[in-house]
Amino acid sequence: MKNREIVKGAKDFLPLEAALKREFENQTVETFTRWGYQEVITPTFEYLEVIESGAGQGIREELFLLQDRDGRLLALRPEMTIPIARIVSTKFRDFEGILRLFYNANIFRHALPQMGRYQEFYQLGVELIGASGAMADAEVIALAAEILKQQELEFKISLNHIGIFNNLLQQSGLTESARDGIKQLILKKDLVGLNKMLSGLPLAPELREVMLEMPLLHGGLQVLNRLEAVRGIPGVEDAINELSDVYNLLAAYEIQDDVVIDLGILRGFDYYTGIIFEGYSPQLGYPLLGGGRYDKLLDKFGCPRVATGFAVGIERVLLALAQRTCSPREVQEVSGSDIAAVLDKARELREQGLIVAVDLSGSNCDKKVVVKPRDQR
Amino acid sequence: MKNREIVKGAKDFLPLEAALKREFENQTVETFTRWGYQEVITPTFEYLEVIESGAGQGIREELFLLQDRDGRLLALRPEMTIPIARIVSTKFRDFEGILRLFYNANIFRHALPQMGRYQEFYQLGVELIGASGAMADAEVIALAAEILKQQELEFKISLNHIGIFNNLLQQSGLTESARDGIKQLILKKDLVGLNKMLSGLPLAPELREVMLEMPLLHGGLQVLNRLEAVRGIPGVEDAINELSDVYNLLAAYEIQDDVVIDLGILRGFDYYTGIIFEGYSPQLGYPLLGGGRYDKLLDKFGCPRVATGFAVGIERVLLALAQRTCSPREVQEVSGSDIAAVLDKARELREQGLIVAVDLSGSNCDKKVVVKPRDQR
Repeated sequence: MKNREIVKGAKDFLPLEAALKREFENQTVETFTRWGYQEVITPTFEYLEVIESGAGQGIREELFLLQDRDGRLLALRPEMTIPIARIVSTKFRDFEGILRLFYNANIFRHALPQMGRYQEFYQLGVELIGASGAMADAEVIALAAEILKQQELEFKISLNHIGIFNNLLQQSGLTESARDGIKQLILKKDLVGLNKMLSGLPLAPELREVMLEMPLLHGGLQVLNRLEAVRGIPGVEDAINELSDVYNLLAAYEIQDDVVIDLGILRGFDYYTGIIFEGYSPQLGYPLLGGGRYDKLLDKFGCPRVATGFAVGIERVLLALAQRTCSPREVQEVSGSDIAAVLDKARELREQGLIVAVDLSGSNCDKKVVVKPRDQR
Repeated sequence: MKNREIVKGAKDFLPLEAALKREFENQTVETFTRWGYQEVITPTFEYLEVIESGAGQGIREELFLLQDRDGRLLALRPEMTIPIARIVSTKFRDFEGILRLFYNANIFRHALPQMGRYQEFYQLGVELIGASGAMADAEVIALAAEILKQQELEFKISLNHIGIFNNLLQQSGLTESARDGIKQLILKKDLVGLNKMLSGLPLAPELREVMLEMPLLHGGLQVLNRLEAVRGIPGVEDAINELSDVYNLLAAYEIQDDVVIDLGILRGFDYYTGIIFEGYSPQLGYPLLGGGRYDKLLDKFGCPRVATGFAVGIERVLLALAQRTCSPREVQEVSGSDIAAVLDKARELREQGLIVAVDLSGSNCDKKVVVKPRDQR
């Protein structure tokens, strides 16, 4: 029957899966709260111009669009950083201090059906607004690691600074579209395509060599030594220093062993300006979480503030946890012919923390019920 | 700046409000679980035909419509009973027993702007599927009362049986549109309009009298005596008996004092077939919650099952609780120049259950950080 199809690319969570999702969310929210983050909830849709002014017009083909009564175009939110930038720029406009916000929300992207991806995802994330410096970056990375550790997940966090890639090519004379082409090939780790593209471009040999190596450069601080020949390009040294500062700080958080410097991660959104990172599980080929510093995004909403944050993909964590089994919680059933007594028993057991269903299938049900006044029992 | 407007009729929850919402949700979910209900999560959108086949085409003007990649029309869900009917008719098709499901979801309705209503609402609700009889109806009403009591809210539940109104007019010879006109006037408690409409219709005098009184008939069982003259109309006596059975059972749940029989509540959706109810707080002019029995809805999805349930409006409960103040939870700030020591302190306090923010504003921040290896401290 056509009238009971679920939307293609959409997903129902049945009870066991919904319970795992809620448990992960509750545990994560508790940790966010302990770290001083406070929840905000934004509407499911934003005006298209809000989303585009944050993410660029390139986002449009991924958006679900709809109209309000006045004919203005709305989009189902494709991520949460932009709606939170909108909130900060209006409702926290006059607050000058450091803001720690978190969200637990669904986001929407038109996915090409052949990719077998869902079109609605659930995320938990934080935004740390108004704090620059390595300590702020280290805090959100450490919080991301804490969330995954709490689930006893095996993971590695890949760490990079988008300023390295951006500054290396900034003054290279390449067009924006050529630079973006290189970025996409590095993102896809397409070494053959990258080699082919780079050999056709007028680049200094040491720069070409670094670009070609970039998808493969990962490890400890020594990785940064491979940038020696291009360190003099304006902005590159600063980015390298910021990256090492944050990496060093992660030792104080006792998570340096969980972190790998990886010059090949570049993130999809253009709004990143500094440290970027992704969290991976050995079970999955795509990141469990990702984030980074976006010091210019709030400018676009007329409220200049530095910021950093991350989001974790809830379905992805649940997938990585999939080997973990979850048995349904045991349900006590109470039944009997004295209904008031049955209900008293149910209440008593529930107060003890048990899950109790009143038997509706048998003698209690489908008959004329006579209830004795309580004082006559 | 236009690019930072929130969508008209949409709402942001800032931290204090978001915390109250989460607290109410967690407490309610815990109670639903204790009573044997299990969560399901459905997508934010459904195919338009799914919604219309459940709610009728009249729902369309309230829907937010959008298109998928294939050009099929989707609607943001305007309520949750229909998506759950879709799940039951597909994913629980072969399960013959009693299903207790709950949800915690947002729903969407185009609202006329002059009404000052939001277009996205949050609901918690249950559906009890596969159980007929007064015990099942009493269970969901008692659960609704429990949720409100848990919040220490003052409330009354108004109880009715839609079969009384429906059967009274079924064989009256009135057109469907006339019957619906009467229903709308009773829903609005528009006595003047009702009197005017009824006096122009060819109705038996005793039926006209009952209809005219209907918006005012509320109280205990004695209210049902006012239906004496029309009791013989087919179906009316059965509905009256079902209503008294449920009302009597509520004594066993010790909530009869919280319940008023009210023949004037008729509910908006057409899918109700039996007991219907609404929960009111003295602070608000509209119901906090509502629900009832819908024994024919699942037939429309090819899966005949009887069912009953209710939904509570989360924003409405928060409004009714608005006088309750919620102070922000206290945040401990830790700072110092030995970063590893600061982080150890933060971890220790968090493990004690405190909320701890690391100071990012002062000396920790915006400087080159040197971290001593932990074994040298």
